[in-house]
Amino acid sequence: MPPVPAPALTVLTTTDSAESAERLARSAVEARLAACAQVSGPITSVYHWNDAIETGQEWQVSFKTTEERYEELEAQLTAAHPYETPEIIALPVVRGSAGYLAWLTAETSAR
Amino acid sequence: MPPVPAPALTVLTTTDSAESAERLARSAVEARLAACAQVSGPITSVYHWNDAIETGQEWQVSFKTTEERYEELEAQLTAAHPYETPEIIALPVVRGSAGYLAWLTAETSAR
Amino acid sequence: MPPVPAPALTVLTTTDSAESAERLARSAVEARLAACAQVSGPITSVYHWNDAIETGQEWQVSFKTTEERYEELEAQLTAAHPYETPEIIALPVVRGSAGYLAWLTAETSAR
Repeated sequence: MPPVPAPALTVLTTTDSAESAERLARSAVEARLAACAQVSGPITSVYHWNDAIETGQEWQVSFKTTEERYEELEAQLTAAHPYETPEIIALPVVRGSAGYLAWLTAETSAR
Repeated sequence: MPPVPAPALTVLTTTDSAESAERLARSAVEARLAACAQVSGPITSVYHWNDAIETGQEWQVSFKTTEERYEELEAQLTAAHPYETPEIIALPVVRGSAGYLAWLTAETSAR
Repeated sequence: MPPVPAPALTVLTTTDSAESAERLARSAVEARLAACAQVSGPITSVYHWNDAIETGQEWQVSFKTTEERYEELEAQLTAAHPYETPEIIALPVVRGSAGYLAWLTAETSAR
């Protein structure tokens, strides 16, 4: 029987520049709302906006955090993000190495 | 108590060119089978094929959609994809900002 | 009613070079602990380490495997990884094309 799914999450957002992505990554890690964050890009985004199809260059940020910290991370991202309605979604981590998950939990615990 | 996991999905596929990836992204968004799609690459793929290990350059497409639209998206991707058996997998979105998930649901609703 | 979530996983790790990433990808696929693996990068990682915020360049490896093979894959990654406590996390695949999931299961079955 696999262990109970670790209460960890991968939280994703996208933004319109590498600088903005690194700012969002750094402020979340500094506030211990994520143990780490990874910026990848540029990616090409295709999306609906006001009934037209738009294509744009974006950078993705992937935060590793716990379910306990999710709402604070969402609030910080919403406040700091340059978009009005940014993508902020969380995918569940159902398995993980014990050492890494312990580190993740420790790094996102209040000090 | 966190809200009931939003019925949203991140659907992933990979393909062999940026053009093919953007075509798959655009046609899904045009048909409102995804609210948005992100193309990243080139990535290096390592995989089994006919008992040998192959390495190739690919581009990944990540679609944001709802569980309700999944089967139609899978059918369209299967029909439009250059591969015979493409990777088409869905990861669950268990949390997300209310504004974004509402936008995602609206953009994938039939008009 | 969607089919029972396929027992498949996307397993993620990051490492400090493209060569290391490809070695981890190839050895997992060779051992049939993953049907395929995708290397993307460089990405910028921001993380806590010894109470400081570090930024570094990394490469991400995304393995497609089954729940059944997860523990063996985690063990191999832990042993082969250059880091002491590498990120090794698994996200659940809840939907997928039948053909692809059948291929994935076949390629990770012992021979």
